[in-house]
Amino acid sequence: MSQYAAMSPSLRAQEIAGLKTQLSGFEQLGCQLDMSRGKPGREQLDSVSDILTVLDSGEQCCFAGQDARNYGQLAGLPCAREYWADMLGCRPEQTIVGGNASLNLMYDVLARGCLFGLPHSPRPWCQEAEKKFLCPAPGYDRHFRITEQLGFSLIPIPMTPAGPNMDAVEEAVRDPSVKGIWCVPKYSNPQGYVYSDETCRRIAALRPAAPDFTVMWDNAYCVHEFEGDFLPFPDILSLCADAGNADMVYEFASTSKITLPGAGISALAASEENIRYHLGLMGVQTISYDKVNQLRHVLYLKDRAHTLALMRRHAEILAPKFRLVLEKLDEQLAPYGIARWNRPKGGYFVCVEAMPGTAKRALALCAGAGVKLTEAGATYPYGLDPNDSMIRIAPSLPPLEELEQAMDIFCTCLRIAALEKLGSI
Amino acid sequence: MSQYAAMSPSLRAQEIAGLKTQLSGFEQLGCQLDMSRGKPGREQLDSVSDILTVLDSGEQCCFAGQDARNYGQLAGLPCAREYWADMLGCRPEQTIVGGNASLNLMYDVLARGCLFGLPHSPRPWCQEAEKKFLCPAPGYDRHFRITEQLGFSLIPIPMTPAGPNMDAVEEAVRDPSVKGIWCVPKYSNPQGYVYSDETCRRIAALRPAAPDFTVMWDNAYCVHEFEGDFLPFPDILSLCADAGNADMVYEFASTSKITLPGAGISALAASEENIRYHLGLMGVQTISYDKVNQLRHVLYLKDRAHTLALMRRHAEILAPKFRLVLEKLDEQLAPYGIARWNRPKGGYFVCVEAMPGTAKRALALCAGAGVKLTEAGATYPYGLDPNDSMIRIAPSLPPLEELEQAMDIFCTCLRIAALEKLGSI
Repeated sequence: MSQYAAMSPSLRAQEIAGLKTQLSGFEQLGCQLDMSRGKPGREQLDSVSDILTVLDSGEQCCFAGQDARNYGQLAGLPCAREYWADMLGCRPEQTIVGGNASLNLMYDVLARGCLFGLPHSPRPWCQEAEKKFLCPAPGYDRHFRITEQLGFSLIPIPMTPAGPNMDAVEEAVRDPSVKGIWCVPKYSNPQGYVYSDETCRRIAALRPAAPDFTVMWDNAYCVHEFEGDFLPFPDILSLCADAGNADMVYEFASTSKITLPGAGISALAASEENIRYHLGLMGVQTISYDKVNQLRHVLYLKDRAHTLALMRRHAEILAPKFRLVLEKLDEQLAPYGIARWNRPKGGYFVCVEAMPGTAKRALALCAGAGVKLTEAGATYPYGLDPNDSMIRIAPSLPPLEELEQAMDIFCTCLRIAALEKLGSI
Repeated sequence: MSQYAAMSPSLRAQEIAGLKTQLSGFEQLGCQLDMSRGKPGREQLDSVSDILTVLDSGEQCCFAGQDARNYGQLAGLPCAREYWADMLGCRPEQTIVGGNASLNLMYDVLARGCLFGLPHSPRPWCQEAEKKFLCPAPGYDRHFRITEQLGFSLIPIPMTPAGPNMDAVEEAVRDPSVKGIWCVPKYSNPQGYVYSDETCRRIAALRPAAPDFTVMWDNAYCVHEFEGDFLPFPDILSLCADAGNADMVYEFASTSKITLPGAGISALAASEENIRYHLGLMGVQTISYDKVNQLRHVLYLKDRAHTLALMRRHAEILAPKFRLVLEKLDEQLAPYGIARWNRPKGGYFVCVEAMPGTAKRALALCAGAGVKLTEAGATYPYGLDPNDSMIRIAPSLPPLEELEQAMDIFCTCLRIAALEKLGSI
């Protein structure tokens, strides 16, 4: 075995032929395998489905003179606010507990910016002649699509293993039309990078030209280690406040990958000034979020320590899947010098950086063999990967045996794409 | 006993003195009674809390190749869409099943109109120089506040026992800046009126100047009889489609007053064209609503027939409360000719039309004696009741004995306010 780039064209042709035979074999299996999204697998869902029975009577809903079953308590059940404050290291008054989707909380914050402006906005963003949003890339496609839909120009910022390239960020925020930045500080989507303390500190200390510049701090994987110990993370609210930027940041989290993805609870954390502002607008939008489900979660998850214990169960299910993916990549791709990848300790993704110009082709081959991956380019603003090279693998959904097959197919396809790119006679 | 208007000033002075003594007595009781919002009472919540245990295993969540616990199915669980289609008399493809608040679905439809426009909009509403919304009044304060927050001028339309004054509506929609109307077609909030077939037909057949005129059809009380048989209602989607206005209407409903107000499910029904449009935008806002709770509701409520049977239980709890309110009004107010009121058969409110200029004063007196009612004026756009006369009573929350006391206090206060207004020596 040797590096493909060093092979002669004729040897490459031979290699392709062999791999294509292999691929035909896979195709005949008629697989339907999905590694496209960070969906927990059935085993994970089963492992937490006790949550369905933890709240089983009306009496449990009544305490402190309140009834979780009735209207009211816009900011969330006090015990749920305490839970999230404990999880995120902030104060309950700095939280709003939402419905089943933190994405919706993010959307609403930015939509309010567009419709009404945020507390420090000179005017609603929809009245700005031009507005831009910083998108560390590769990143999370759903983040990018929110700001795209709301009319922002998406400005890519290179990602590094320590987080977004802060020189580039500091330079970019000198433009007053730059209104914010997307961040996934822990186990970034898709690379699994953890922002360094230095990066967090520099973000908190930004001096943006826009008075309403907004850091969208999506702490989606705050307790989501699948390997090794829990990694503490800084309270970004305190960091920003200490740097004189208390109102600059909104932090988000959810139980989507702690309990049930479709039926969890979410949280927004921000300065008390920001919380007041958003509650004022939210009070017209809704009466309250589902406090029965908030209570169900508090009864089930209890606190941070208990949540971390529960996350070990997820880790036990997830770790073998990530290990398998890395083994397959090590065995089947490493020898040919056609890709590199990260080795995350948490989060939901492995990111493969393939030889430039091969990602789309490889994924098309995969699709033909019944293996669905996140669309090539999806991790870049507008779905445009300038190098056509970044591939996001989400190993969580398929059972191990299916994942093994999917990875065999993926590696075969990526090898074919690389060989085609390098050329053969 | 005689009509206050016919009394001599000196007799009125005597009457006031007696009533004020009575009120002092009430004040010394230190009541804390709340008739301000249409919140179900504890007994109602207890009567449906079996819903908490109807879904108690992960297996129940898995069927038809789907898992309700996982991400996906933006438009809602198919069985939940079927449930709502059955309830509203439309087709499942015409529905989106939402989270715990239909108010949030309404807000989102109009916010999308502002940010992006609706399918027939020449431009996003936030780019319109002027935009207006028709508000049949008295009406629901939360409706009015949504359109107020989104920057519409609120145009009051007189309510009649058959629904909004349709001559006024037909005249108003000739203005192209009029973008929509709020409707509560069955047991209107607060008067409990049911729109006549003629009104529904005329609304469906409107020929508004604005191509994107929108009927916000909040069918909040579609199965909410507390007296008499279920009153069938027309499918507004068909009526509009038949009149060539298929895309003009959005219907809303929820289980907030069927199961649990803070933890129910909601629905939006509209033309398939509108559904497609909104799903396209919604797909950026969220991944899915809480399908576990949707499933819980379908298991518990089953279908329209079963839901109607369950509504009889609510009726048994609510009917005595409404009866008590009407008895008190008949006994303590009718003799003095100082107010009139409706006698609804469903919904959540009794609306008292007091002598002009007395509502605020009466409610201030009530507040002083510990009885909270919906703020005077709240049922009018901008909170401005031109006659200071409309008072909304929400009898559902307090237990019967507290309600009795609250009504005694209310009647006393309204009598004092009327006497003060009429003048005494």
